[in-house]
Amino acid sequence: MPQPIAFYFDFISPYAYIASTQIDALADRHGREVDWRPVLLGVTVMRVMGLKPLMETPLKGPYMRHDSPRMAKLFGVPLRHHGLKHLNGLAAARAFLALKQKDAGVAKAFARRIFHRLWVDGLDITPDETIAQEAAAFGADPREMLATITSDAGKQALRDAVDAAVGAGVFGVPFFIVDGEPVWGCDRLWMVEHWLRHGSWDPAGAAAASVP
Amino acid sequence: MPQPIAFYFDFISPYAYIASTQIDALADRHGREVDWRPVLLGVTVMRVMGLKPLMETPLKGPYMRHDSPRMAKLFGVPLRHHGLKHLNGLAAARAFLALKQKDAGVAKAFARRIFHRLWVDGLDITPDETIAQEAAAFGADPREMLATITSDAGKQALRDAVDAAVGAGVFGVPFFIVDGEPVWGCDRLWMVEHWLRHGSWDPAGAAAASVP
Repeated sequence: MPQPIAFYFDFISPYAYIASTQIDALADRHGREVDWRPVLLGVTVMRVMGLKPLMETPLKGPYMRHDSPRMAKLFGVPLRHHGLKHLNGLAAARAFLALKQKDAGVAKAFARRIFHRLWVDGLDITPDETIAQEAAAFGADPREMLATITSDAGKQALRDAVDAAVGAGVFGVPFFIVDGEPVWGCDRLWMVEHWLRHGSWDPAGAAAASVP
Repeated sequence: MPQPIAFYFDFISPYAYIASTQIDALADRHGREVDWRPVLLGVTVMRVMGLKPLMETPLKGPYMRHDSPRMAKLFGVPLRHHGLKHLNGLAAARAFLALKQKDAGVAKAFARRIFHRLWVDGLDITPDETIAQEAAAFGADPREMLATITSDAGKQALRDAVDAAVGAGVFGVPFFIVDGEPVWGCDRLWMVEHWLRHGSWDPAGAAAASVP
């Protein structure tokens, strides 16, 4: 039985959103499952790598603002530039982990809803109350969820998840680990597919033709 | 007459080397020319973006050391981990610009030789004398070339080229600009091909199938 593909995401990344619309169908074409794992770019990019936020990096910021809409277009998914400030995915990531403890499939459906809320509806995902309310549509009691995501245990669970991701070498999102191979970026989904098809990095047949 | 594709490179990047083995054939399949333009990662990454060198960035450095060999394998080109320290492509970039003033095709052949020297033969490309000697194989007088690449004018020509690249939004290598569309990374050659084929970012026909 092959291992699931690990898919690391942060709700605040447009590229993670785009990947979230693709990865399960891609895995399914090769009989694989996907294990969704939240991570925080604020920790990996800023604290661990010591870099500034991508969107605030000269040259790279403007490039990404031009790039993310065209990337969404290429993958045929909607993407809205939300223009929200001081956004974070802490509450949503904590809620995701709480839901996942009970049912990974439900947690995934919740995550898709949160991505959609931010990147298609253009609505904020930061407030704890908003997230508790969104979780209610997936069977959670909103009061319980609010208590969970503001509790020490809820916060620690996310810290542990981020530490584990950093321990696995994850530094950006989306990040995939397939059979031990780390792959970073929604622009590299073709590499995940290549690996699933061939189990190696040898250029081979149809895949090689699609590489360039 | 469509504009040539601008291809920005730094000899010290394994990804620029990999792209250098692909971009002209790719462009040629679509009746396009490629204009090779040297840039210096030391300027774009460190001075302009204020970031540290990629290979010295926690998590990202190890990822790239794992990634560049498999990327070379995927594209079917040889790549050697040279292990050289204190490498720079200043002299080679200056020589490239001097050769390009006379003949862009000769300069491109020289650049391919320098990439090969570093990434296939695993030999240093830093010393001025080495570069002058390599340029001799492409019709340059080695003494004249040595004088050129150590002259104020030779240094200024490279500074101007880097400034122009930064002005065009270039922050990493390989970087392509095709019909005004900026594309960063040898893992995105499929996007350059998509654009050349369709002239848009709409998912379409065979290209859409190869995206995921």
